[in-house]
Parts: sequence; C-alpha cells; structure tokens
Amino acid sequence: MNENRAIKVALLGAGSVGSQVARLLLEQADEYERRVGTRLELIGISVRNPDAKRDVDLPSELFTTDPERLILSADLVIELMGGISPARELITLALESGADVVTANKALLAHHGAELFELAERVGAQLYYEAAVAGAIPIIRPLRENLGGDRVERILGIVNGTTNYILDRMHTRGDTFDESLRIATELGYAEADPTADIEGYDAQQKAAILASIAFHTKVPVEEVYREGITSVSIEEIEDAKRAGYVVKLLAICERLIGEAGEPDQVSARVYPALVPNAHPLASVHGGNNAVFVEAKAAGSLMFYGAGAGGVETASAVLGDLVAAARRHLLGGPGSGESMDANLPILPVDEIVTRYQISLEAADEAGILASIARTFADQGVSVQTLEQAAPVEETEAHSGAEPVSRATLVIGTHQATEGSLSRLVQALSASPAVHQVNGVLRVEGVNS
Amino acid sequence: MNENRAIKVALLGAGSVGSQVARLLLEQADEYERRVGTRLELIGISVRNPDAKRDVDLPSELFTTDPERLILSADLVIELMGGISPARELITLALESGADVVTANKALLAHHGAELFELAERVGAQLYYEAAVAGAIPIIRPLRENLGGDRVERILGIVNGTTNYILDRMHTRGDTFDESLRIATELGYAEADPTADIEGYDAQQKAAILASIAFHTKVPVEEVYREGITSVSIEEIEDAKRAGYVVKLLAICERLIGEAGEPDQVSARVYPALVPNAHPLASVHGGNNAVFVEAKAAGSLMFYGAGAGGVETASAVLGDLVAAARRHLLGGPGSGESMDANLPILPVDEIVTRYQISLEAADEAGILASIARTFADQGVSVQTLEQAAPVEETEAHSGAEPVSRATLVIGTHQATEGSLSRLVQALSASPAVHQVNGVLRVEGVNS
Repeated sequence: MNENRAIKVALLGAGSVGSQVARLLLEQADEYERRVGTRLELIGISVRNPDAKRDVDLPSELFTTDPERLILSADLVIELMGGISPARELITLALESGADVVTANKALLAHHGAELFELAERVGAQLYYEAAVAGAIPIIRPLRENLGGDRVERILGIVNGTTNYILDRMHTRGDTFDESLRIATELGYAEADPTADIEGYDAQQKAAILASIAFHTKVPVEEVYREGITSVSIEEIEDAKRAGYVVKLLAICERLIGEAGEPDQVSARVYPALVPNAHPLASVHGGNNAVFVEAKAAGSLMFYGAGAGGVETASAVLGDLVAAARRHLLGGPGSGESMDANLPILPVDEIVTRYQISLEAADEAGILASIARTFADQGVSVQTLEQAAPVEETEAHSGAEPVSRATLVIGTHQATEGSLSRLVQALSASPAVHQVNGVLRVEGVNS
Repeated sequence: MNENRAIKVALLGAGSVGSQVARLLLEQADEYERRVGTRLELIGISVRNPDAKRDVDLPSELFTTDPERLILSADLVIELMGGISPARELITLALESGADVVTANKALLAHHGAELFELAERVGAQLYYEAAVAGAIPIIRPLRENLGGDRVERILGIVNGTTNYILDRMHTRGDTFDESLRIATELGYAEADPTADIEGYDAQQKAAILASIAFHTKVPVEEVYREGITSVSIEEIEDAKRAGYVVKLLAICERLIGEAGEPDQVSARVYPALVPNAHPLASVHGGNNAVFVEAKAAGSLMFYGAGAGGVETASAVLGDLVAAARRHLLGGPGSGESMDANLPILPVDEIVTRYQISLEAADEAGILASIARTFADQGVSVQTLEQAAPVEETEAHSGAEPVSRATLVIGTHQATEGSLSRLVQALSASPAVHQVNGVLRVEGVNS
C-alpha cells in the first residue's frame, strides 16, 4: 500500500462531539500525519441541516446531506449522530463497504452491538467505540487489552454525569432532588428532557456494554436491571451521610463463579446505592465519571475523569480514529475478542448484596424483638441497627392517647434481592412496623 | 498461518512476577486459547538456579539455565529478570530472531529504550512494556492509544509504592521517616536496600518512560531531575497538613508550549511535593499508585490501583502477552508510534512551579518588610504567609537578652527553580533570617 495516500475520513453528525472532532481533525492534521504515517483527510461531514448554528465554525464545503454517498468514498467512518436509526443502517453500509467505523453511540451498541460486531467480523472490518462509555476516560481498551490476560470479577461504575451531579449536590448542599435537577438543567448538566439520565436508561446501556466486554459474553440491555434516582429523598441522603455513606447511581457488573460443574453467571444492574466514604468512588464529585474495576490478578483499579462533554468525548473518538488509521495502513487484529462465552444472566431475584432499610415502628417494649424475628424468618441477617430519637405524635384517627414512634435504620449482611423483597413485604404487614420508609443497597463493602 | 499451531512462549526469570505469570499461563490456558484463537504454550522458564525456593510450585521440567537456546525456539519472549545485563542482550537476541517481547524492565527501558525500540522497528518485531510503569494500572496503552488523538500536557504520577507508603504513614500516623521506613521494610513494602525507591531512582526511570510516550520524544533518564524523600521531616509533613496539603513523591512530566516559532519543550522531574487535599492524588494511600494526566481535549484523567506486587504486575504482563499473541496470529501495527519529535528538555533552572518555604526569623518590627523585600528582589511573588506563634529562647552565645523567634511559612506564586535557589541563598544570607528550614514544591494547583 502506498503510505503517501491520504486516509479518507467521513464524519456523520456535527453536534457537540462531532463539531469538536472536525475542528481537532483540521487543526491537528500535521500531528496526526506524524503519528499515523500518512495524512488523515476529512472528506465530508454529513448533517441534516448544513445551515444549523454550531459550536465551531467549520468549512461549509465539507457539509453534505447525503451520508450514503459520503460513506462510499471513505476509508474510515466516524458516526456521531446518535440514536438507533439511521445510525444503524449507515454503520452497516460503512462496514459492508469495507470501511472501519468509530462510534460513540451507546444506545445503538447496547441494543444492536452483537449484530454489528458479527457483521464487522464477517467482513473483516473494525468497530471502535471507546467514546461510548465514560467519555474521555479510557475504559473499553483497558478492559479488552490491558486486562485481556486477567479475569474481571466486578465493575462498579459512575457512568452518568448528570445523576452524579444531582446526587453530589444533594449530598454536599442539602438541596432536594427537584432543586438539584433544576440547577443541573440550568448549568447544562441535564438535558431538557432528563428522563434517559435520571431514570437510569443511559447507565443501563453503558452497563450492558461494559459487562459484555468485561465478561466476553453478550449481555442484552433488556436484561440489565434498572432503577433511577427520582425517588432518592433528601432524608435518605442525610441518613446515608450520618452513617458514613454517599449515595451514587452505580452501574454494577459482576461475574459469579459457578459451583462445581455449573457455568459462571453474570449480573448487570443499575441503581442508586450507598457507597462507604472511604471507597475511591465516594470522592467522585460533580459531573465526573469513574469506573472501579476488580480483577483477579490486578486487584482494584479505578479510572477517573470527565464524563460526557463535547471536547472530552472527541478525545476518545480521535484516539480510536488514530488506531483505526494505523490498522488501515498496516492491517492487523481488531476488536478480535469474541463475545461468545454465552454466560447466563443472573435473575434479578438472585442478586446478592447488602441493604440498609429505614422504617418506622412503635416505640414499645418487645417491638425490636418482633422486628428481629421478622428478619430471621426471611433469612436476612442484621448487621447494624440505629435508632433515631423517638418522636411523640398524636394520631388524628386514634383517641387522645399519644403514640411514640421510633425510626430504625437497619443494615443487613448479604442477602438476595428475593429474600429482601419478601422481608419488606413481611415488615410492611407486621403490626410492629408503622411503615417502611425506604431501602437502599450498599455496594463497595467487602463481604 | 495455521491457527491451530500453538504459540510458543519463553519466560526469562521466575521471581515474584515471573512465577505468577507462569502459574496463570498454566492455570488459565483454556481461557487464553479462547481469547487468542490458539493455544499459548509455555515452552520453558530460564532461571539462574532451578532449585531455588519460589512463591509458586512450577513443573521442574520447564526450567532451563540456557536462555539463548530457549529464546531461539520461541515465538514470544517474556523478560522478567530485571536489571540491564543480560536482559538487554537477551531481548536483543529475541527481537533479532523475530520474536515479539514483553517486558516489565523499567531500568532497561529508561536507559536503553530508544535503542531497543529502534531495533524492534527495524526487524518488524514488537516490544510491549505495560508492566514497567505502575504495575497493573493501565497507563502505557491509554497514553499511546486512547490519547493518541489528543495532546498530553502534564502528568503527575505517584509511581513508587514504597515511598507512598512511607509518606502516607508519616502523614496519617505521625511516625518519623526512619520509623516509617523500618515498618515498610518489615511489611515487605521496602526492599532490604531501599535506595532505589527512597532516593527516587525508580520513579526517575518511570518518569523518563512516561514522558517519552506522552510527548512522542526521547527523554534520557539522566535528564530527569531527581530528589528522593530521605530529607522529608515529620515537621514538614505536619506543616503541610496544617496548610491543607499532603506530601507525595511525584513523577512530573510537562510539555511547555514554545513561544511563536520556538519548539515546545519537555520537562521530566521527580521530587517530594505538596499536593492540595482536594486533589485526587491526595487520597492515594498506602502502597498504591496513581497517575494523573491532563490532556488538551480529554481534560483531567486519573488511573489508580496497586503498584508493584507479583500478581498485579503479572496481570499487566499477561495483558501484553495476549495482545502480542493476537498480533502474532493476525499481524498488524505494533508500538508504531515514533519517538522522534526530538523536543528539547527544559533545563532544571527553568522549571516553573510554586514553592512553600519555611524559615525562622527574629520576631522584631520591620523583619517582615525586610523578608518581603528579599522576595521582591529575586522576582518571587508571595502568595500566602503564615506565622507560627513566636517562641522565646535564650541564645547560649549571646548575653542575658532573650531572643524571640518566629517561624514563617511562605507560599509563593509560580517561579522558576533558578530564581527560587537565588532567593534561598539571599534569605540565608539575610540578617533578618535565622535559618531556612526547608523548601517544598507545590503541585496540582491551577495557576
């Protein structure tokens, strides 16, 4: 191959990430040429509306509204449109035409990754997607390559900057969820429709991608258990704080070693959880992301940095582009790694973790024993119990007799989700318990 | 190539890392076969004494005392002997015979890396060395590949676990340097001869490697400025603590943008420095390592985990081995990246940072003005000044008149090392100053 021939790069999409990628490709062209060994030529940018206002001034002659034609003239295609369609069809076209593809499209990968990886392998093309999870933070390549000789056991990830900003604000400022969300929106940390972030859908997609790579198996996004942060109250945050915890929305991926003869199982889930103050994830503030990885030989590792953000994500895209360009010149292994370990997904009921349960009970003799019996009956073992000062109150519907209520915060040893839900039902039905205020899982504590 | 043919792996050295690598290669052979696409066969382990006691039981038939012969039968060679010779000659032999090489030998890379990379490029072989810096923490590949489309501006690394353990112990327990070193030795954090660690030579080698990769240029280890931690006193640690800092031994790599027409310059240096409590590096405790990277587009990233340690380092070696094996099967780009940016190294005197100077002065009217004038004369600007409560003392050699002394801790704005040394000379010569207790640099604060 003639090393002097420029490598033709097509860009699909010129939003906040795409416009930064285009700017850097043009500004740093000489540097990329030195690093790759030949020139990277941006041959066109496909957009819906060439006249739209953008963050960056780009040469208007690069814009086109015909992505198919652009793709068919390119050696490498960068897809930054987002969404499933037409990104899926255009990436398929690019791979089928022999171009390697760089994408940051987590939704597409979470839903149709397996199909696209199979296509890439069949046609001998490559799909790069470092930017799809945790923006500029290197996590895909470290999992696939650095830990390629190790065995990943668990991942705890703060992979959504919006929810981390909101929870961090609730924790450090004492603002409510609604106030924190309003400020996050004003500051640009949350989108006009924040559903995908605050309901955990964004983190769910990232958990599916991380689990698939870490465990070399397909983890369908629909099988990732998901809870968002909309029901996290300021009281829960304050209780957590008193008990030495921070509440974080975590994407959790676990590999559970099978008993003799049984295959390993995989669990991937997203929910707000209590993290001990001393855990490295507890110090991840504001809109930052971090991924904490436990591997058999490497031990605990953490990868930390800015999450999304146009120029940060552009860094990851351009890292992939330079790698793709080198491969384009020299050939060689690509994503390589198969995902056909075919590990079964652990059912939600069988997830094992610790819990912290807040409940209100009558402040009477014998109540604690009664509650302890309910725990024992459900096979959930109590580890800690904290009783807040009892509050006297007169119940409207009762007679004049004042009732004294105590708030109990009970931490459990490890238990399954199944026994935990049965416990909560039993507690709710128990005459000793006035109400169960809430349950939060506890992660990042060694069992 | 027949994908069913096993890839022959030779291991040189069976110390704490080598024996773990051998164990994992044997134990996880099936898993590697699935990941690579063919079997990795450990054909031999070259050692000086096959009968030596080792951490791990290994099949004795694998041992050999003839490394040359072993190398000449291998497809891939793992060098874990350490030291310059004969590692240098054996890696040269391996590369010349067409084998790719995986090494964790930081001393060799820091001193002869350029020569070995050139040889590898000439013969079309590869040299992998993720394990040479920060053990299991992915840092070489993220710098070379993930940040391959970005521009690294600064690296602040805690890359030596022994010194971090000692400084952390001084900070959290109040132990002296000597006590902390003694305990570090007892616990196995420090070697019998700790010189390479506590005098900063180990960190100096890693700084040379990191700067070369990050800035795509050769940084000779001899040009990395180095100070160890043996002179860090418990008083300095306590002063730092009071002022909201932690003392860390940092490997610092910086790229300084040249003025119009001038080339960029590179600085690489190692010294104990004050790091603000809020900086992510301040929370790196015990024997852990962490590398904080600032890049133009990606912003701030941090990579954190266990430093050395046999099994942790083995994880990095095996990640490289799997990558090398895939390349062996499929061909393709290797280290690729040239290091011929040929950037000049910034002279030590021109390093710019902030300083914290502790000195004792007579507690008299006008003294502060006199000291301030000395700072101004040397062009160093005062940012903070803290005066400890004055201590009355009677000087033996003077008459009966008691002298009152004040300890001043003065933080500066950014200044060059050159002006700082001139300032310290001027202060020492000043009649207003009784003595300069010490100077520490301050890193991780935005200018």
